[in-house]
Amino acid sequence: MKELQERIVQDGKVLSASVLKVDAFLNHQVDPQLTMKIGQRFAELFAGEKITKVVTIEASGIHFAMATSFALGVPFIYAKKKKAVTLTEEVYSAPVHSFTRQETYQISVSRQYLSKEDRVLIVDDFLATGAALVGLTNILKDAGAHLVGVGAVIEKSFQEGRGLLEQAGVRIESLARIESMSPEGIHFIEEEPARV
Amino acid sequence: MKELQERIVQDGKVLSASVLKVDAFLNHQVDPQLTMKIGQRFAELFAGEKITKVVTIEASGIHFAMATSFALGVPFIYAKKKKAVTLTEEVYSAPVHSFTRQETYQISVSRQYLSKEDRVLIVDDFLATGAALVGLTNILKDAGAHLVGVGAVIEKSFQEGRGLLEQAGVRIESLARIESMSPEGIHFIEEEPARV
Repeated sequence: MKELQERIVQDGKVLSASVLKVDAFLNHQVDPQLTMKIGQRFAELFAGEKITKVVTIEASGIHFAMATSFALGVPFIYAKKKKAVTLTEEVYSAPVHSFTRQETYQISVSRQYLSKEDRVLIVDDFLATGAALVGLTNILKDAGAHLVGVGAVIEKSFQEGRGLLEQAGVRIESLARIESMSPEGIHFIEEEPARV
Repeated sequence: MKELQERIVQDGKVLSASVLKVDAFLNHQVDPQLTMKIGQRFAELFAGEKITKVVTIEASGIHFAMATSFALGVPFIYAKKKKAVTLTEEVYSAPVHSFTRQETYQISVSRQYLSKEDRVLIVDDFLATGAALVGLTNILKDAGAHLVGVGAVIEKSFQEGRGLLEQAGVRIESLARIESMSPEGIHFIEEEPARV
């Protein structure tokens, strides 16, 4: 997605070969117009898949799930990072290790909102180590729901996330795939040209 | 907002005189179409206020801030609940006590994204004790930003939040004001009739 790549170059900050900061427009301060376009793009890419729900993890995936589910006309669910007091029913849960924060947390989704009738698109801001996304796919497995695919806004292609998901047969669509980066610049994997 | 009130009656669950669960359509599983209408309503209510930014707190305010800022055509910012590794710049921060979770956490906003030129609308899912919203108003004060008002999706009018904010001279617009509730039913404060 060209507009997104240009925005990453313009407003993103590469802090190291593995840390890209997009706090200015994607995950602290957010451009809602760009976010809606991202949601529309995911909806187009997975059109015809009869998706019934979009699933993400709080907090930084929520607005992308919102935009995508709005475009698809289905509800979205955000997995919670710890069991809240008001989450009284039984939940599906999975552990996720965050390499950024160096801690393991539990993500959970109420059993009420996922079933084996569901066809689910997972959406998140980053695909990097894949830890959070693999956690979500485990929750879907527990629920017996069908995983249609994963939509990542930004993929750090030099990390292992894509490989892990592909091994599990998961379809992945990333809107900006970063092959390598440094404070001097970002190198994207170009999108496949449209087939003629 | 009539559609919202009807939906609360239909899909909300009153667990006690003070706990209302809206996990089915507002803050775990989310109806994006209703959320967009909520955002449009806030945008209408605060039209003409020359808002430059919408501010909320992760996680349950994010989709409402997204919808509102999309309707207003301005960015939104979600305050983070703990300092992340990638939040390297200086931040504005304030402590917030959660009565639901019985814990105090720190909320923070990067200094880069708020300034004294900003005219800010705060949006959140609930106005109850007002603790989180007062924390946000303190962050705005530190930044020297002008607070235009607070938009709450649901107000528990029997709790002290509205009083606290009104004492500080803050304009509040809530889309569903609950006067009292019990597992037997919910009593809303009716909206003012339109002035002729």
